[in-house]
Amino acid sequence: MEERVFTFNPGPAALPLPVLKRVQEEMLNCRGTGMSILEMSHRSKEFESILNDAVARIKRILKLGEEFDVVFTQSGASLQFTMVPMNFAQDGKPLGYVDTGYWASKAIKEAKNLGKDVRVLASSADKEYTYIPKNFAIDPGLSYLHITSNNTIRGTQWPSFPNVEGVPLVADMSSDIFSRVFDPKPFGCIYAGAQKNAGPAGVTIVIIRKDMLERIPQSLPTMLKYSTFVESNSLYNTPPCFAIYVVDLVMEWLEETIGGLAKMEEINRKKAQILYGYIDSQDFYRNPVRPEDRSKMNVIFRLPSEELENQFVQEAKKAGLVGLKGHRAVGGCRASLYNAVTIEAVETLVDFMKDFARKNG
Amino acid sequence: MEERVFTFNPGPAALPLPVLKRVQEEMLNCRGTGMSILEMSHRSKEFESILNDAVARIKRILKLGEEFDVVFTQSGASLQFTMVPMNFAQDGKPLGYVDTGYWASKAIKEAKNLGKDVRVLASSADKEYTYIPKNFAIDPGLSYLHITSNNTIRGTQWPSFPNVEGVPLVADMSSDIFSRVFDPKPFGCIYAGAQKNAGPAGVTIVIIRKDMLERIPQSLPTMLKYSTFVESNSLYNTPPCFAIYVVDLVMEWLEETIGGLAKMEEINRKKAQILYGYIDSQDFYRNPVRPEDRSKMNVIFRLPSEELENQFVQEAKKAGLVGLKGHRAVGGCRASLYNAVTIEAVETLVDFMKDFARKNG
Repeated sequence: MEERVFTFNPGPAALPLPVLKRVQEEMLNCRGTGMSILEMSHRSKEFESILNDAVARIKRILKLGEEFDVVFTQSGASLQFTMVPMNFAQDGKPLGYVDTGYWASKAIKEAKNLGKDVRVLASSADKEYTYIPKNFAIDPGLSYLHITSNNTIRGTQWPSFPNVEGVPLVADMSSDIFSRVFDPKPFGCIYAGAQKNAGPAGVTIVIIRKDMLERIPQSLPTMLKYSTFVESNSLYNTPPCFAIYVVDLVMEWLEETIGGLAKMEEINRKKAQILYGYIDSQDFYRNPVRPEDRSKMNVIFRLPSEELENQFVQEAKKAGLVGLKGHRAVGGCRASLYNAVTIEAVETLVDFMKDFARKNG
Repeated sequence: MEERVFTFNPGPAALPLPVLKRVQEEMLNCRGTGMSILEMSHRSKEFESILNDAVARIKRILKLGEEFDVVFTQSGASLQFTMVPMNFAQDGKPLGYVDTGYWASKAIKEAKNLGKDVRVLASSADKEYTYIPKNFAIDPGLSYLHITSNNTIRGTQWPSFPNVEGVPLVADMSSDIFSRVFDPKPFGCIYAGAQKNAGPAGVTIVIIRKDMLERIPQSLPTMLKYSTFVESNSLYNTPPCFAIYVVDLVMEWLEETIGGLAKMEEINRKKAQILYGYIDSQDFYRNPVRPEDRSKMNVIFRLPSEELENQFVQEAKKAGLVGLKGHRAVGGCRASLYNAVTIEAVETLVDFMKDFARKNG
């Protein structure tokens, strides 16, 4: 294919075209250094200024106060499933988790595997994870309460966050960070693999409220302690420099081209409305999620048969609409509408869906 | 600067110009997919073929037999310092380490921190790590013997590997993998951050002999178990796709442009000879390392004073020779001559050194 396609990948996902063009332009000579970002020392002042700019932009965009640190780790949310309980579990205080499906379940499994006292306070397993549990009891004696803010596979999203009354919230926001405005104050820790809304795969953004640092056991391995990253400004060892550089460019795009998080949220709401609006207007495609808990990032839909679903994914790909297959764990179709997916892309998808339904309905 | 400079960075380091040009060309549309490598799903057949090609090339280049697996992890050698003892320590069998300086010392510290029975069998601390210990006793009852094949900061390199008689060798080869031919058979595990000879920062290459997999405790966290990476072909979660893609391109360059590892070694020997040959021919610059243990990757040199060293680094940078400052832990100057550093770059450096010595000697 010579032209660029519309990418609805669940992550790694679409990136803003101006960011990709900038990466391309600077590839042989990054900002007058005479070398590629790939060749630049992580100890150079040029790289440090890129890293610091990324941190400053993330803090501005999310309105993080002085009480928060932002660091860059590696190995994705999957390693955070282990690091969070290792670092933040307090003696005699159980860990609270909410099970909203695949990734939330994995976080629970890793915490249990460490031998921690894990309490699953609520779960939507009873209805195949098609909703977000609400109004469950939260014991004030918990070390923390862990949630998964958006569930990529089941297409659900917390419409607002639980009231935790002094228990720090910990959230895996991999798939909806930077997509909407929220109040960071109740959060003790937020982590997110960059590869959906923030950049390429290979870097994980971790936001830590400073009071949480006091909990970290000194005996942990150096690379598994959040304090190592905080104290060194993410430069204890060589960080994933290129991924951080792209995150910085994406944050610049979000602030300066889009105009900030409120504007981004508005665009995301519009995109979701276009797609859910169409799905709700007909009978060929159906979305199984409770309407108030529908994800604005990952729209899942089923067709009348698996055969039609396969045909849909194939024909869409030929038409330049890529990444519409549902997760292998649940099947069906899914369109991921992350920040870099344009309104034009969503409109093109809906046109294709209409056409497909007419021919096959 | 509009032109590209000569980069002697210790890592992240120079990359082959044809590789950078290829990355640039493919940035908006990677191999006809209509999307950037940064947007490509790690579950797509296009990405899987890139990953498999990288593995196949690494196996061919290093002549790894069927008994070896190659996986991609994250967080650099620093996380391997913890993962190696977690995965490969056997009950009742001590861990053997050789202390050849900074990174070797860190590996020892992390193993001890896990509460393991660590035996430092030899150390060159007595002479400021200016040589590689040899002819030390190796207890056949060790779980493994850990060495650091090349010491970037002290400028030493194992000229050949110890005879371990049944004890698996484990090596941190971050800074000299793919620089010379060696026999992989005695190695139970080899790990290497990619950012010197193999690609950009953000991916770690780990080579594991299959018999080592039997040692891995089932109770380890999923992301800290080598078996997770082996069983999933490095695709348990989202890998650092872009870094793996660049590693594949660098391996392709090594095989197809350079002509393989023996050719690469010959070029590296020539580069080291040019620089050490000049240093040994005069008195202004001096290298403190025992000649037989000198690194062909990292050539350290001192000038008559720290003031002159600072002046040297500054003026070299202005002349387009970048990255010549010694590590902050030891001071002095250092030229890293990794695979992508050309003979032309080394000759230009020697010309500059001659000129600087004449003006300041």
